[in-house]
Amino acid sequence: MTSSPLDRLLRPQTIAVFGGREARRVIEQCDRMGFAGEIWPVHPKLDEVLGRRCYRSVADLPSAPDAAFVGVNRTLTVEIVRSLSEAGAGGAVCYASGFSEATAELADGAELQQALLSAAGRMPILGPNCYGLINGLDGALLWPDQHGMQRIERGVAILTQSSNIAINLTMQTRGLPIAYVVTAGNQAQTSLADVACALIDDPRVTAIGLHVEGFGDLASLERLAAIARQSRKPVIVLKVGRSEQAKRAAVSHTASLAGSDAVADAVLARLGIGRVGTLPALLETLKLLHVAGPLESRSISSMSCSGGEASLMADAAVGHDVEFSALPPQHLPRLRQALGEMVTLSNPLDYHTFVWGDLARQTEAFSAMFEGGYALNLVVLDFPRADRCDAAEWAMTADAVTMAAAATGALAGILATLPENMPEPIARRLLANGIVAFSGIDETIAAVEVAAGIGRAWNAPPPLPLLDVPCRGGEIETLTEADAKTELAACGLPVPRGLQAFSSHEAAEQAERLGFPVVLKALGIAHKSEAGAVALNLWDIEAVSDAVAAMPPNDGYLVEKMIDPPVAELIVGAVRDPVFGLSLTLGAGGIFVELLEDSVILPLPATKTEIHAAISRLKLAKLLNGYRGRPRGDVEAAIAVISAAADYVVKNASCLEELDINPLMVLPEGRGVAAVDVLIRRRR
Amino acid sequence: MTSSPLDRLLRPQTIAVFGGREARRVIEQCDRMGFAGEIWPVHPKLDEVLGRRCYRSVADLPSAPDAAFVGVNRTLTVEIVRSLSEAGAGGAVCYASGFSEATAELADGAELQQALLSAAGRMPILGPNCYGLINGLDGALLWPDQHGMQRIERGVAILTQSSNIAINLTMQTRGLPIAYVVTAGNQAQTSLADVACALIDDPRVTAIGLHVEGFGDLASLERLAAIARQSRKPVIVLKVGRSEQAKRAAVSHTASLAGSDAVADAVLARLGIGRVGTLPALLETLKLLHVAGPLESRSISSMSCSGGEASLMADAAVGHDVEFSALPPQHLPRLRQALGEMVTLSNPLDYHTFVWGDLARQTEAFSAMFEGGYALNLVVLDFPRADRCDAAEWAMTADAVTMAAAATGALAGILATLPENMPEPIARRLLANGIVAFSGIDETIAAVEVAAGIGRAWNAPPPLPLLDVPCRGGEIETLTEADAKTELAACGLPVPRGLQAFSSHEAAEQAERLGFPVVLKALGIAHKSEAGAVALNLWDIEAVSDAVAAMPPNDGYLVEKMIDPPVAELIVGAVRDPVFGLSLTLGAGGIFVELLEDSVILPLPATKTEIHAAISRLKLAKLLNGYRGRPRGDVEAAIAVISAAADYVVKNASCLEELDINPLMVLPEGRGVAAVDVLIRRRR
Repeated sequence: MTSSPLDRLLRPQTIAVFGGREARRVIEQCDRMGFAGEIWPVHPKLDEVLGRRCYRSVADLPSAPDAAFVGVNRTLTVEIVRSLSEAGAGGAVCYASGFSEATAELADGAELQQALLSAAGRMPILGPNCYGLINGLDGALLWPDQHGMQRIERGVAILTQSSNIAINLTMQTRGLPIAYVVTAGNQAQTSLADVACALIDDPRVTAIGLHVEGFGDLASLERLAAIARQSRKPVIVLKVGRSEQAKRAAVSHTASLAGSDAVADAVLARLGIGRVGTLPALLETLKLLHVAGPLESRSISSMSCSGGEASLMADAAVGHDVEFSALPPQHLPRLRQALGEMVTLSNPLDYHTFVWGDLARQTEAFSAMFEGGYALNLVVLDFPRADRCDAAEWAMTADAVTMAAAATGALAGILATLPENMPEPIARRLLANGIVAFSGIDETIAAVEVAAGIGRAWNAPPPLPLLDVPCRGGEIETLTEADAKTELAACGLPVPRGLQAFSSHEAAEQAERLGFPVVLKALGIAHKSEAGAVALNLWDIEAVSDAVAAMPPNDGYLVEKMIDPPVAELIVGAVRDPVFGLSLTLGAGGIFVELLEDSVILPLPATKTEIHAAISRLKLAKLLNGYRGRPRGDVEAAIAVISAAADYVVKNASCLEELDINPLMVLPEGRGVAAVDVLIRRRR
Repeated sequence: MTSSPLDRLLRPQTIAVFGGREARRVIEQCDRMGFAGEIWPVHPKLDEVLGRRCYRSVADLPSAPDAAFVGVNRTLTVEIVRSLSEAGAGGAVCYASGFSEATAELADGAELQQALLSAAGRMPILGPNCYGLINGLDGALLWPDQHGMQRIERGVAILTQSSNIAINLTMQTRGLPIAYVVTAGNQAQTSLADVACALIDDPRVTAIGLHVEGFGDLASLERLAAIARQSRKPVIVLKVGRSEQAKRAAVSHTASLAGSDAVADAVLARLGIGRVGTLPALLETLKLLHVAGPLESRSISSMSCSGGEASLMADAAVGHDVEFSALPPQHLPRLRQALGEMVTLSNPLDYHTFVWGDLARQTEAFSAMFEGGYALNLVVLDFPRADRCDAAEWAMTADAVTMAAAATGALAGILATLPENMPEPIARRLLANGIVAFSGIDETIAAVEVAAGIGRAWNAPPPLPLLDVPCRGGEIETLTEADAKTELAACGLPVPRGLQAFSSHEAAEQAERLGFPVVLKALGIAHKSEAGAVALNLWDIEAVSDAVAAMPPNDGYLVEKMIDPPVAELIVGAVRDPVFGLSLTLGAGGIFVELLEDSVILPLPATKTEIHAAISRLKLAKLLNGYRGRPRGDVEAAIAVISAAADYVVKNASCLEELDINPLMVLPEGRGVAAVDVLIRRRR
């Protein structure tokens, strides 16, 4: 274990508690969990709390405590934290609220938080406005409320911004061994990602689950991902924010496609951090990762003793990156032998009840399946209610799974279709034996998808460091289309040949210079198409003059060579996200942007391989690859140009607010691409 | 209660059991559930079973039994069923397998099933190949295995094709009162829909949940929907089959869009039958329907004592037809008064913990919210583990919800984010008090969506009877495009003016007759575009001759007037589903079919209002409504033409196999539509 500044706080030998009711409950919690270290109550008036001598102040303590729970009011909190820091304490949980989270209601909230930070100095603090932490490995709790955890020797760590959700998660009856629960409130000094980095270092921690509303800081998230990868301990995140994105006003096409939630998805995927969507999926995925770590593939098997469950399993995988791949032919004879002639061999497999109640035959049947090379082998088994039924034959089936897994060395799981049909004692025993005890079909599929995704990311080369350039201040200017095109053309982006004009006469002259047909655009107008500021396909001087006459008031004209009909139109854009900075958005362009809602986000910098992969994920890829007899698009050229656009964004990261190339017309193979319309907004 | 031929079987006073181990277990199950009627074992050798006198045969019985469990081998089953029917018994459960389900393995399976049907005559039978039924209202079980049910007085009925899933569902610990569980195996004579119709009649049954792999018979499904609507007892279905559709080979564009699973969706929606996707959602939706029936709107509220849960709730609703609509302004003062100044009033609402532990203030806060006119008011509350924590304050919160619901007359629910954090005794008490006890956020959102959907359907006029015309036999012929267009033109569908030709010379002549530009198509060729059998935009005789020269070998040519560029291209099609017959598919046409995957299925017959609503649901509706300065499409004309196509399908229902109009070009407003390419396949 490498040493972290958080070590003493997370794994204390001595705990000081400050305050009344909450401090008392911290002591009770530690006693109940059998904390072996010393607990020192500090109180100005009481002589004794729960049989322990009370100290009057930090100065009176036998030594500087490793950890302190500070459960007093907000102003007193600052004073105590200062004393602790000066005395050389290992860290403190700041329970009080009324700091930065309450600036709307309390004028001095932000100021007081700053004072708290100064008081803490280099001493780590969790909070303010947080419940603190439960260390279930050592029974050390800096936690003022009830929880459902028990002492364990090895398990997962759960970190959340919500103390209430933390408590609820500890109440799970799924057998998941939880080693740590940590909440960090305002994360004034120490972020959840910082805590996660420190927890990964504990050899008794197997995986990390975070529940967050947002990421404060890209760098610490990146550091967490790197440490996770290095120590082979997977991290997953339940991030809320889909509804926020759904509400978010679309300030531009790219922004409406990008949304910070979609960017978060792309960044997490690149970093090899898994993302889950629900609390049950968080717990089930942690179970899988606790037992097995990331999966080597997305190919899994399923066996159930009824066809009804086999169909439910097959259905649940639809739309997810999980595959019930066909049984390898060489394994069919053994499976046929084990299950008899009446069973149709398939995956998901309905193994019927012919081997039910026969340990040896069940073990043989499961072993035959488990040898198929699947990343995970599921056996669907809902246990009956212990209070009303006899579960002996179900327990035998669980034993058969355990024995088959041991015999084959394959990873196996038992899945109850209703969460409550996986009793806690059985789940605990299975997990201890290396069998994943899953509750719920959808949650299991989510867990497999996430675990396989992390495996894929870790098997790929480490990702490039993310572009993390702060935005410079200054007013935002929007370049004219002509200027924006000149700028991009200088970086190697092909734009239509174009000339500016400021009168009908000049426009006609420029058109003749370019050669017909041409396009006429009025400059200085947003949403040109809707405003009638674009005239396409002008074949002669008269058409140009008529078009000029019909244009709305403007700042001049851009006359461009008309581009031939493309194979497909792309949108290539970049917007700045407050947390994740600039990323690239690729999608179906032109009128397809809103119709197809077909886009992919690429964190920056992006390699050509990543750009190619991103294009391939678009629905529009069908068009680019030559659709129903149509020509193929010049994908090579598209990749080169998108790469150049990405370089432009990286180079201008400190001032660029938004780039929008829409459409980027992809011409037939060998004929290149053209950035037909372009928007650049940047800080002066 | 009206009388049904299934009444004696479903609610027997006397039960005869045939067979060994299974028959014995039926008796045990009835005894355990306190069945008050008589049980008569019938056995050729035994004198007594579980303290009851044994009879030698049906003839020896004191009278004809209301119900019989026939747990003997398949051939003997036929004989006993014959005796029962002749004696005037009320019905029988046929447990044995080896009938139609096993025709692959047993040559006489289908024949024996026919014999069983004859033997039963007019006596109802469930099965063969089924476990039978559990009547938890009267403690009458014709069920040879363990289950988790208890005697109740009122509750839901669950019907499933899978006995194993039936058993698992009875093991739920969610407090759902289950009145009946029925499995119908091969449904040789009595379908699950028939059973459902009979169960709805029982005044103690509140709602029906079906789990099926497919619907055998459209008419009985339609009858069930009508009875459900009439008796105000909602029916929901968990139908598997998404994976099957995903695998289904695309035999035509329309078929790939339609898929029987998508058709099932459309038919169920029209019938006002809800559809759920998972077993937990089935149970949670039944809970809601049991307490409240269908919802009057999709607008609900949520309160939680942490912001973390409020965000999870908001996120869970994204993509679902459920709305956390804004708080009505007139209710804000009362809510502000109840919660204080520190709480931000919103929906979902984080009510913080200021009123926690104070019954009166909690009740007032909940009441203030519940008065907002929402169809359902949720309070998020995860109960702590009873074995490790004190739940007194949680119980108080549940009391506050119950009192607030009583005070306001509003519908309320308590939602545990982890299913296990809603303890069974509490769930049962809440449900008994009219408070919906929900387990799981996603399941709750699904339940609301389904219940609101049923409410919407029931508030609309009853649907037209579905087109249910059996397909006549005979070979399938594909009409030439010219013939197909002639046929449709006769029904009022506008097709481009076209003339046939059989040589280059004739083609040129026809082109001149039509006026340039023209389109040239080679006849007798499938997938014309890919085969190079279509030449668009030919402006003169030379172009026509060149195009003829470049065509693949064919059966002649169709020369058509070129249609102006449309606003949008639709696909209008019909395919025959083995269960649901013919339905109409509307979607984005042309190259959009596969790119947009944008389609809606309309069961037939369809009114113009339904057609309009279907078009409005397409992504393509944006284009039709005038997109970014483009012209609006002639939607009126499109509706009229789609209606004519629907009439054509209805009129030709006995012979039509497939209709594919792709594209139906929608021209700018006032300029109509044109069926540019057409495929008709039908029985001779």
